[in-house]
Amino acid sequence: MRILVIGAAGMLGGKLVERLVRDGRLGSERISKLTLVDLVAAEPPGDPGFAVESTVADLAEPGAAASIVAGRPDVIFHLAAVVSGEAEDDLEKGYRVNLDATRMLLDAIRGCDHGYRPRVVYSSSIAVFGPPLPEVIGDDHGVTPATSYGSQKAMIELLLSDLTRRGFVDGIAIRLPTICVRPGRPNLAASGFFSSIIREPLNGQDAVLPVSADVRHWFPSPRSAIGFLVHAATIDGARLGDGRALTMPGLTATVADEIEALRRFAGEDAVRRIHHEPDEAITRIVAGWPRAFEARRARALGFSAEADFDEIIRVYVEDELGG
Amino acid sequence: MRILVIGAAGMLGGKLVERLVRDGRLGSERISKLTLVDLVAAEPPGDPGFAVESTVADLAEPGAAASIVAGRPDVIFHLAAVVSGEAEDDLEKGYRVNLDATRMLLDAIRGCDHGYRPRVVYSSSIAVFGPPLPEVIGDDHGVTPATSYGSQKAMIELLLSDLTRRGFVDGIAIRLPTICVRPGRPNLAASGFFSSIIREPLNGQDAVLPVSADVRHWFPSPRSAIGFLVHAATIDGARLGDGRALTMPGLTATVADEIEALRRFAGEDAVRRIHHEPDEAITRIVAGWPRAFEARRARALGFSAEADFDEIIRVYVEDELGG
Repeated sequence: MRILVIGAAGMLGGKLVERLVRDGRLGSERISKLTLVDLVAAEPPGDPGFAVESTVADLAEPGAAASIVAGRPDVIFHLAAVVSGEAEDDLEKGYRVNLDATRMLLDAIRGCDHGYRPRVVYSSSIAVFGPPLPEVIGDDHGVTPATSYGSQKAMIELLLSDLTRRGFVDGIAIRLPTICVRPGRPNLAASGFFSSIIREPLNGQDAVLPVSADVRHWFPSPRSAIGFLVHAATIDGARLGDGRALTMPGLTATVADEIEALRRFAGEDAVRRIHHEPDEAITRIVAGWPRAFEARRARALGFSAEADFDEIIRVYVEDELGG
Repeated sequence: MRILVIGAAGMLGGKLVERLVRDGRLGSERISKLTLVDLVAAEPPGDPGFAVESTVADLAEPGAAASIVAGRPDVIFHLAAVVSGEAEDDLEKGYRVNLDATRMLLDAIRGCDHGYRPRVVYSSSIAVFGPPLPEVIGDDHGVTPATSYGSQKAMIELLLSDLTRRGFVDGIAIRLPTICVRPGRPNLAASGFFSSIIREPLNGQDAVLPVSADVRHWFPSPRSAIGFLVHAATIDGARLGDGRALTMPGLTATVADEIEALRRFAGEDAVRRIHHEPDEAITRIVAGWPRAFEARRARALGFSAEADFDEIIRVYVEDELGG
């Protein structure tokens, strides 16, 4: 089985490659070739036991998509995107990369010989949902993006479903929740504090909490997110029907739930590392975010995530701090 | 007030121009100029009392959009589209016209001098909804297009809302239901029978009913549809918020309801003109269509349609048969 990962140098891309190399297979099929594509060279994994090619390419450049899919990969993970903040700052770039380049990829697939119909796993986002939102969002709830990023993701969900229905690709768009605990250094994302109030104390550092403890949000671990991608790559398309966008499972937790889980795991000293410094701008942004989903359809299809925040902390410690 | 109608040679375009000429104003403002654009020359109305320009142009051609909006119209009605059947037969053409050309129009508006932010009234469609559907579709129900046409309309709804939120246009997408009674000759649309079983008997001709009498659907008259467009052009944008796609009101009626209304209006002889000739293909297509909507948001914003099918027949007779 030939696998292509676009956006392989990112956090998710890197973890996905790690998982594929560890498994040596995707579902029931052995991996024969793995192609990594990103704007910067993705670190090829050491000694994977199959061919790995790492290519630097910009999918938004004319002709790039055709050469990227020329090897006719069986499964394509498309994880590359201009993130939310940048798509909001630079309207042209967001539409060029998140909408046009993805469309070029799908058109390039459609342009291949008759009979080529790869599984395309597309990383969509719960950013397709914006206010007003119910407390718990059902699978049939309409998308109402509050950002250009969310709008672009929702447009590709529609295109991917249509081209799948028309028989040109076999697509599935998975709406990724906010991943927690995100490894690495703090970043400037408005959602960063959900991870940093756990990650920094566990690493002996201070963290800032810019919102009140009753803020509620929807989380899977990075390990679960990779599980979503792998499951999406192998699930029987016939079970999906024509609507190819799926809201992924997660757990709904408040910041207070996070703090209590941290207290149970690492004690009062760790909790004292969290400093509440209210930030009105972040509070306002986060107020418009989804708090919980039903995600019944995805769960029925076998997607699963953690059940409580204690488990999310355990996964972080196992995967990032060596247990 | 300067008004631009793109798709002016179509059935809705023609009726909209008639209405604008009759009113001489749009909302509280006198019309100073009306520009008609279509692939074929739209018949300019006689003696309107304001300047009328009829232009033949293809919005999908490079540069066309910029020259179409160069006169900086205050209100733009964008009604031009490749219809459902053709967008299904010709994938490229559907995306080029329904998605790309509309995006070119919006980009051309964005490319004008700072401060130009026209009201854009976009004719979307209830084709953004596909199966599985509840018996009555609420305003928050997710879009699940079953056709490329519906997918393209839904993508533009997202783009229009995003560009409105970003301040580049002041857009509103109105999801038009199946208009009934459509004037003119029978056409090949799968929905044609909803109109022809009323229209043909009232004109002393026979009509074919390809589905069973319990088939239910959602209708406004052409007069109401023009009312939607005019109201959408004048409504205060602040009342709409960021979600700029609105499902239009209508009435839910079965084919049996239609036939009973015809019987009350024109008697048994007219009803005998309807010949039931079941068509499996049409029955299957129509089974996936919406049957009823809540349309609460649109009604609260002042959009309105007929209350019963008797009224729809009366409107047809008044507007098309001279009373």
